[in-house]
Amino acid sequence: MLSSEQFRAHWQGHRGLTRRVIAAFPDDKLFTYTAGGMRPFSSLAMEFLGMGVPTLHGVITGEWKSYASPKATTKDEILGLWDEATAEINRLWPTIPPRRFQEVDTAFGQWKMPIYDLLLYVVDNEIHHRGQGYVYLRELGIEPPPFYERI
Amino acid sequence: MLSSEQFRAHWQGHRGLTRRVIAAFPDDKLFTYTAGGMRPFSSLAMEFLGMGVPTLHGVITGEWKSYASPKATTKDEILGLWDEATAEINRLWPTIPPRRFQEVDTAFGQWKMPIYDLLLYVVDNEIHHRGQGYVYLRELGIEPPPFYERI
Repeated sequence: MLSSEQFRAHWQGHRGLTRRVIAAFPDDKLFTYTAGGMRPFSSLAMEFLGMGVPTLHGVITGEWKSYASPKATTKDEILGLWDEATAEINRLWPTIPPRRFQEVDTAFGQWKMPIYDLLLYVVDNEIHHRGQGYVYLRELGIEPPPFYERI
Repeated sequence: MLSSEQFRAHWQGHRGLTRRVIAAFPDDKLFTYTAGGMRPFSSLAMEFLGMGVPTLHGVITGEWKSYASPKATTKDEILGLWDEATAEINRLWPTIPPRRFQEVDTAFGQWKMPIYDLLLYVVDNEIHHRGQGYVYLRELGIEPPPFYERI
């Protein structure tokens, strides 16, 4: 239905949008604004960073270390980590052995599923929580970047 | 990377979760609760219904009619339409000509993109706005269904 390279481009398109959502938050509100008892968007962004590259390492090697726990205290630091992850994903992606997509593995010792499904989950989790970030921005009176733009 | 049938199951897994999010809203709040000037979750659910089956018709036939505009005024009506769409998607999906996924088409006369990308967009749009619904539920003091459960 779609190729490995098409999926990489799909993921990075979403990651580009998420970067614009991070950038749209005022520096302080990124770390402080919450609604409904949920986490601020900085914590969600760091969750995405903690999952992305470590998942890709496990997909490629079959060895699952723990999620990363990036620590960043400013918007610029998060955006810097984001750009590093973008480059790392582009570097690692072509090294995924094609047979891996249909193999079942137990990611991080916890989630047993086919690799294609795991990769979809990583992207879906980002879309899901980014939707939460859109509400935060609207509640702050800030127009979020268009959902359909994926650069 | 993944097969047509795997993508259908992925989509329907998300649709099952969205159904549980619709069901989690109190009957009135589904139509009235909003945050940040955004639409109530009933409108978002009807948007998903308006896109799903009509997109599939276009994918299969290459003929693009307009989006559907379902009208429902109660939660039970929305859930009934949801279940009809679930059955219709399962019926139509296997009739997609496999070559279509990589063809570029102009969906609904407006969006020119490969069909695989269009189908990803339909699912992503549902995940995105459902994330918004999760915030509404949290703000209403209601625990949303777990994101990772896709039945």
